[in-house]
Amino acid sequence: MKVRNLLGERLKHVSDESQIESQILMTKGGYMKPVASGIYSLFMPTQRISKKVQAIIREEMDSIDGQEVLFPVVMPASLWQTSGRYTSIGSEMVRFTDRGDNKMVLGMTHEEAAVHLANNVAKSYTQYPFMIYQLQTKFRDEPRARGGLIRVREFTMKDAYSFHTSQEDLEKYYERAYKAYERIFRRVGAKNVIAVKSDSGMMGGKISHEFMLLSDIGEDTLVICDKCGYRANMEVAENITENAGSESAPLTKVATPEQKTIEEVCALLGRKSSGVAKAVVYQENDTDKYVIAFVRGDLEVNETKLRNYLKKEIHPAVGVDPESGIKAGFIGLYNLNADATVVIDRSLKGIKDLVTGANEEGYHYTGFDIERDYGKTVEYVDVAKATEGGICPVCGAHALTIKRGIEVGNIFQLGDKYTKSMGMTYLDADNTEKNPIMGCYGIGVGRLIASVCQESRDEYGPIWPMSIAPWQVEVCNLRVTDEKVKAEADKLVEDLEKSGVEVLYDDREVRPGFMFADADLFGVPVRAVVSQKTVERGVVEVSTRDKTLKTEFVSGEAAEKISALVKEMLAAYNA
Amino acid sequence: MKVRNLLGERLKHVSDESQIESQILMTKGGYMKPVASGIYSLFMPTQRISKKVQAIIREEMDSIDGQEVLFPVVMPASLWQTSGRYTSIGSEMVRFTDRGDNKMVLGMTHEEAAVHLANNVAKSYTQYPFMIYQLQTKFRDEPRARGGLIRVREFTMKDAYSFHTSQEDLEKYYERAYKAYERIFRRVGAKNVIAVKSDSGMMGGKISHEFMLLSDIGEDTLVICDKCGYRANMEVAENITENAGSESAPLTKVATPEQKTIEEVCALLGRKSSGVAKAVVYQENDTDKYVIAFVRGDLEVNETKLRNYLKKEIHPAVGVDPESGIKAGFIGLYNLNADATVVIDRSLKGIKDLVTGANEEGYHYTGFDIERDYGKTVEYVDVAKATEGGICPVCGAHALTIKRGIEVGNIFQLGDKYTKSMGMTYLDADNTEKNPIMGCYGIGVGRLIASVCQESRDEYGPIWPMSIAPWQVEVCNLRVTDEKVKAEADKLVEDLEKSGVEVLYDDREVRPGFMFADADLFGVPVRAVVSQKTVERGVVEVSTRDKTLKTEFVSGEAAEKISALVKEMLAAYNA
Repeated sequence: MKVRNLLGERLKHVSDESQIESQILMTKGGYMKPVASGIYSLFMPTQRISKKVQAIIREEMDSIDGQEVLFPVVMPASLWQTSGRYTSIGSEMVRFTDRGDNKMVLGMTHEEAAVHLANNVAKSYTQYPFMIYQLQTKFRDEPRARGGLIRVREFTMKDAYSFHTSQEDLEKYYERAYKAYERIFRRVGAKNVIAVKSDSGMMGGKISHEFMLLSDIGEDTLVICDKCGYRANMEVAENITENAGSESAPLTKVATPEQKTIEEVCALLGRKSSGVAKAVVYQENDTDKYVIAFVRGDLEVNETKLRNYLKKEIHPAVGVDPESGIKAGFIGLYNLNADATVVIDRSLKGIKDLVTGANEEGYHYTGFDIERDYGKTVEYVDVAKATEGGICPVCGAHALTIKRGIEVGNIFQLGDKYTKSMGMTYLDADNTEKNPIMGCYGIGVGRLIASVCQESRDEYGPIWPMSIAPWQVEVCNLRVTDEKVKAEADKLVEDLEKSGVEVLYDDREVRPGFMFADADLFGVPVRAVVSQKTVERGVVEVSTRDKTLKTEFVSGEAAEKISALVKEMLAAYNA
Repeated sequence: MKVRNLLGERLKHVSDESQIESQILMTKGGYMKPVASGIYSLFMPTQRISKKVQAIIREEMDSIDGQEVLFPVVMPASLWQTSGRYTSIGSEMVRFTDRGDNKMVLGMTHEEAAVHLANNVAKSYTQYPFMIYQLQTKFRDEPRARGGLIRVREFTMKDAYSFHTSQEDLEKYYERAYKAYERIFRRVGAKNVIAVKSDSGMMGGKISHEFMLLSDIGEDTLVICDKCGYRANMEVAENITENAGSESAPLTKVATPEQKTIEEVCALLGRKSSGVAKAVVYQENDTDKYVIAFVRGDLEVNETKLRNYLKKEIHPAVGVDPESGIKAGFIGLYNLNADATVVIDRSLKGIKDLVTGANEEGYHYTGFDIERDYGKTVEYVDVAKATEGGICPVCGAHALTIKRGIEVGNIFQLGDKYTKSMGMTYLDADNTEKNPIMGCYGIGVGRLIASVCQESRDEYGPIWPMSIAPWQVEVCNLRVTDEKVKAEADKLVEDLEKSGVEVLYDDREVRPGFMFADADLFGVPVRAVVSQKTVERGVVEVSTRDKTLKTEFVSGEAAEKISALVKEMLAAYNA
């Protein structure tokens, strides 16, 4: 491919410098063009990367006995009504009516379609287990598309669905999928990907893992134990707190006329925030009913854990109805008479001298002891966020670190949620009808590409791993008007292509600095430069985009040696 | 792949025997499953065929300098408003509103997206020509989905868009695309594909061709000259008629009290239908205004030609308003006083003694001579359908034959319709801004697969061409419980796979008849049978699905010989 013929344009600057680095570089490099919020067209280089990523995914899915199928983008609402998700999923699912007045949806995930396809054609236990997967376009009407291809509304995704006759069999397969995922991320050149335990969210099911590419710009917060290797998404990470050495004190009402925040109350009373019962008010989405979560003042409420405990969708309360009995700024555990569900986090357990609101404008209590003063049976639950330096729930060491990650893949043990609701059964060996149990396994192709770019780049452009690079070698012809230089560069390109190397050839009449700036944006892993100087000296200058190699090959051997270099670099990703 | 693990089921019968053969066979064979009208999920064999077809298409698009890109499935309505097609396209385009209240559409074709992608990044004439293409899912809300994958609502399509600085350059490229299309159809094993001139329809532009797979079940009617090779879609085929030897006669009003149809009038008056001016009434879609087309009584009106002449969308009139002056059954050219556009087909030219309605209940005229009696200047136009045995508009021979075809691809010269309306320009060598001119080139992957099946089959199943077959060889193990047979069949599969052959392996404990019936439905081009008998005799039975070969190979040489056979069969499609 010649750069002069390649559609797309390289930019010196982007208008919005606040974007994340990979987005800036991929915009500058002419990788994609926004068509609408979160909707992109992809230029040739991105599509070439995408096809290589897809090929690697296919190989690994086939290696764990996957059968590639294709589900539709547009599905009848009826399919989603049988599973119950037509109503349980919100406005991120696009709904429309077709010309025959049938309700339709755009697929944002394909559990329903997978069960539909497998239903009635896997009627005997002897046909299990099996896994079907597809690579297909999905649409999710994200409210906050951001980061270029990191979070979009339309995306190409690999989604896989496995079917089993027992939980043990699912677990065995889940482990194989987990390993296949590790291979996929290694092979596409994503270096810092870890698997963390995660929340199953709208998928249902109990055990699930997310594969996270560690990155400061990641939207997910991860809790990692440096001692034992425990890893979890903050959303599900258990929080353990120790409250040793607290002394009893008499329950005392104190005036806090102007003090509404934890900081203000602590400053007035000379207390630490870890000695305060902080109240955070939510509302149930359905009923607007209030939920008050009490956590230790130095901690934050983990909304996902709270939601999972309540088994209800909630949102932070927007203002508080004065009729409710909730006195914002002075909410406390003593004498709380409010029409609200009260949840007490276990971080408050064992503190004998708590500061807590008096449920009365302008007052707090000190010396509050839940066991002594609350007056009701207390159920302590775990709804607080884990913290940096906190206690590992597995090994008990004070060794938790908090990192950020981009979710590049996920795997779920789904159980029988879908097969049961959609009436899929098989005849088991004992002659009874049973619902198969399922696993599902997703990878977003575009997000993975953008994540690799985010991880593998310098200030001038992406440094694509050889395994997914749009081209393997870029040949820069610095003097196309010189016939000798042209002849040698043309020959090099021809010889490289003959030996199966994918070449991007820049033979434009532009300044070397301009050409190299473009080359940096293309991110092709090996660069070969032919100029008047190199021709005179009978060599080709060869370097790698990651700057680990800069050398010269004798002209006559250049094609062969570059080809060997490409093979060697490729092999590193298959090791 | 083992048949025992393959998801999908083979059926002995389908419930609806009225379906076309390829649909029946692909349903019986477990190739797809309907999810909604015109929306299918595809099982693994179909997806494997599809990937091979797509690979061939990619190779040929790349060979004519195509750059593979990706456009979105979901697009903002605004993109289609700039081109004007948001309103000009009817309910076959799905429209919906996203969560931010933006109007969106599902892509049914991507001219707008192609111009959007190329706009502003091809600003100099030096960057032309170029071609971009994609393989992507499209949705067209067809009112009449039918024939399995032949006519669906959701489909995978290759669509390509070329951009040029002159009509000559477009024509040169169009010719290359035409040849690439011929190669694609030959390589996927579609035998009877011809290119015909076609109507450009909603695409705009003037010159276009459709590639038609000749088939009785085709929805398109083709006009072909057996003498000179002239080929056109009936929609645009010119009709030529000769009206020699007609004698003048006096204009005479005759009573036809009960005779409303051409047949009844002819029977009463003892005339041939070719001596009658037949009136067919249409209405303009916008205004409901009537259009009366007069053609020779033995011919039919060609609606597409009529529409193109009028430059208006029309539909057959549903009843006629008595106020309009149109007397259904008695409409004629003499004394016609109706609020209608009158169109006179050139097939009526030169007939001196016509029968025509009297525009009066119960009467016709004989002896009508348009030139003598019509009283107005007559513009003869060509709006009649060509007929079997008719006159070729190119060579003039009475050699037209009428055939039916399935449209498996199309190519269009678009002109500047889209670049002009969407404001795409480039700076030409003469330093002026110009709109590039475009070509577009489509192939529906699923329809092509179903068409090949329709063409290449017997009563038992598809006969897939080696180039696109889901697997290349099926090994049938007729006695898996016999250890010797199992060992030999397993070894054969292993050896074949080692030499790169794609094997479907049936080692189920089923009767041979059952296994062979399934094998016929899989349509794998080469079959190798291992049984107790063959093992005893030290051979493997090998046959081709198309029954042109039935032989035996000595066991030790079987893998090698089968592998050579596969290569030979493959090569035939690349010749």
